[in-house]
Amino acid sequence: MASALVAGGLGFLGSHLTEALLHRTDLEKIVVVDNLWTGSRDNDEFMRDPRVSIAISDIEAFRSEQSFDEVYHLASPATPDKYSVQPARTISANVIGAFRMRDLVKPGGRFCYISTSEVYGDPLVSPQPESYRGSVDCTGPRASYDESKRCTEAFLFECNRTEGLDVRVVRLYNAYGPRTRWDDGRAVSNFISQALAGKPLTVFGDGQQSRSWGYVDDLMEGIVRLFWRDPIDYVGPVNIGNDREVSVLGIAEYVASLVPGARIEFAPPVAQDPTSRRPDLTLARRLLPGWDCRISYEEGIGRTLDWFAQRYGHLAQAPAEARS
Amino acid sequence: MASALVAGGLGFLGSHLTEALLHRTDLEKIVVVDNLWTGSRDNDEFMRDPRVSIAISDIEAFRSEQSFDEVYHLASPATPDKYSVQPARTISANVIGAFRMRDLVKPGGRFCYISTSEVYGDPLVSPQPESYRGSVDCTGPRASYDESKRCTEAFLFECNRTEGLDVRVVRLYNAYGPRTRWDDGRAVSNFISQALAGKPLTVFGDGQQSRSWGYVDDLMEGIVRLFWRDPIDYVGPVNIGNDREVSVLGIAEYVASLVPGARIEFAPPVAQDPTSRRPDLTLARRLLPGWDCRISYEEGIGRTLDWFAQRYGHLAQAPAEARS
Repeated sequence: MASALVAGGLGFLGSHLTEALLHRTDLEKIVVVDNLWTGSRDNDEFMRDPRVSIAISDIEAFRSEQSFDEVYHLASPATPDKYSVQPARTISANVIGAFRMRDLVKPGGRFCYISTSEVYGDPLVSPQPESYRGSVDCTGPRASYDESKRCTEAFLFECNRTEGLDVRVVRLYNAYGPRTRWDDGRAVSNFISQALAGKPLTVFGDGQQSRSWGYVDDLMEGIVRLFWRDPIDYVGPVNIGNDREVSVLGIAEYVASLVPGARIEFAPPVAQDPTSRRPDLTLARRLLPGWDCRISYEEGIGRTLDWFAQRYGHLAQAPAEARS
Repeated sequence: MASALVAGGLGFLGSHLTEALLHRTDLEKIVVVDNLWTGSRDNDEFMRDPRVSIAISDIEAFRSEQSFDEVYHLASPATPDKYSVQPARTISANVIGAFRMRDLVKPGGRFCYISTSEVYGDPLVSPQPESYRGSVDCTGPRASYDESKRCTEAFLFECNRTEGLDVRVVRLYNAYGPRTRWDDGRAVSNFISQALAGKPLTVFGDGQQSRSWGYVDDLMEGIVRLFWRDPIDYVGPVNIGNDREVSVLGIAEYVASLVPGARIEFAPPVAQDPTSRRPDLTLARRLLPGWDCRISYEEGIGRTLDWFAQRYGHLAQAPAEARS
C-alpha cells in the first residue's frame, strides 16, 4: 500500500487531483498540505475519507516524520492578480516547495508537478511543442510565476538526471471549471462571477488575445493517466490542454449570452499579457492514445456557470477583475 | 559607516569584488561567506584587512545577528562541469541563497547580483540586448545554472517592484583572468593549465563556437561603477562584457602559441553548448560613460598565463577538460 502527499490539495486543481487519488485502492494514506492562500476549506468536502489528513501549512515549512511514495506539487497561485502581488511567496512556494518535497519522496518514489504553458511566455511559435524554449521576460511582471515554474522544472529534470528521481511534469493550458474560487482571477470564472453578481464582465485590452481553455475534467483525465494510471516511460514535460483557441472576448460574449442582462466592459490591457497560446499535443496523443479534450467551451462554461450559481449564488459582490 | 556581505567572496570574481570594496573608506565591516565549493582559501590573501571577516558556510545556511547595508550575491559555480554535476546545489545557492540574503539587507540597503549571459541561452539574436528574452531549454543540461540565474533575477526585480528593494544586476559575459582555479573548467584557464601541464588543449566540437571573453579587470571596472561608484538610477539588468567575439579554437590557438610544445586536441561537442554569444553594450555605455573593455584577449591571456605560471607552475596534473 502506498502513500501520497498533495501540496496545494485544497486548491482548484489540487482538490480534483486528490479526489482522483481517492478512487485508487492501492493508496492507504494521503496527506494534503495547503496554506489556503488560493486554496479553500470548502474543497475538503471532496476528500472526506479516513485515508486523508489535511495540514494547513506552507509547503516550504511542512515537516513530516514520514516520507511518501508519491508527491504531487500543486502549491502555487495561478493568476497574475495573486502572484504579481506576492511574487517572492510565489517563487518560494514553487521552488523552495519543490526542494522540500524532494526530501519527502521515498527512495524509488515519484515526484509529479503541475507546470504551465506560461513557461512559453508570449510565444513566437504556435502551437507550442514542448521543445519550444519560450519567450519569457525574466524581469517582467509575470516573472515570479513563469520563472519559478521554469526553475522548478529545471530542478526536477536535473534531479532525474543526476539522482534518478522519477519525475512527471505536465504543462497545463488555461484550466477552468468547478471549484475555482469566486475571486480566483482567471478569465472564465471571473466572467461568470461578474455576470452572476450583475456586474459588467471586464475584458482587458481588446479581448482578441486567445487562449486554449481546458475544462478541468478533460485536463484531469490526461493528468491522471500521465501521473499514475498508464504505464508510461517518458522523461520530460508534457503539454496538456485544449488545442482549440478561443479569444478572451469570445469567452466573455458566450458567458454574457447565458446570463440575462450581462454586459461587457473593456479595461486597459494587462502588461505582457500573452497574445496567444495553443498547445502542440503531438506528444500527449502519442503517450496517451485516445486522450483528447472532448468538452467544448460552450459545454464547459455551461457546467461551470451552473456550479457557480449553485455554490456562490448568494454572493452579491463582484470579484477582482478578470484576467487570464 | 557601512557594512557589506559578500557571498562567494573567496571565488574568482568574489575575491576581485571584495578587494575592490576594500578600497572604499566608507565601509567598516565586510563579511565574506563562502563554502569553498568553487572558491579557494588562497584568495583570502587579497582580503587581509581588519574590516574583513570570513565565514565558511553555504549562503543558504548563513546566520547573522546583524543585517547589512549592501549585499553582494556571487555564490554560484559558473562552469558546466561544476553545476551540471550538482545542479540542485546550484539552484539552491542562487535562488535560496537570494532569499536568505534578502532577509539580511537593512531597510534602504542594496542587493547586488552577478548574473550571466547564460540567461540568453543559445541566443537567436546577436548581439543580445538586455530586452532579449533568451533561448534557454529549461529542462536541458545547463538548466540548473541558466534557470536559477533567471529565477533569481525574477525574484530580485519583483522585490524591487513590490518592496522597493534597491537592486543592481549585471549579466557577465565569459569572465577570465587571474584567480581562476586551476581546475575551474572555463575555457581560457583550462587551456592555460593544460598547456602548463604539458597536456593537449581540449577543444569541444570544432571550436568554432564563439564567446565574448571579458578580462576580469575590465569587467570589474564596470561592476564597481554600477554597483556603488557611479550615481546610477536605473532598474534592470545590465550586460557587462567584451563585444569582440573570438572562437574557442582561436583562444586555444593563441594559448598554444605562447607555450612551447602545446598542441590542441578535439573532443565531442558538449550538449547544448551555445554557438555564439555577444553583448549589446548600448545600455552599459549609456549608464557608464567612457567604460569599455580595453584589454585585448592577447593581453589578457598573457597576463593570465603569467599568473598561472607563477601560482600553479608546480602543479603537474592537468585539469578537467576545458569548457566555456
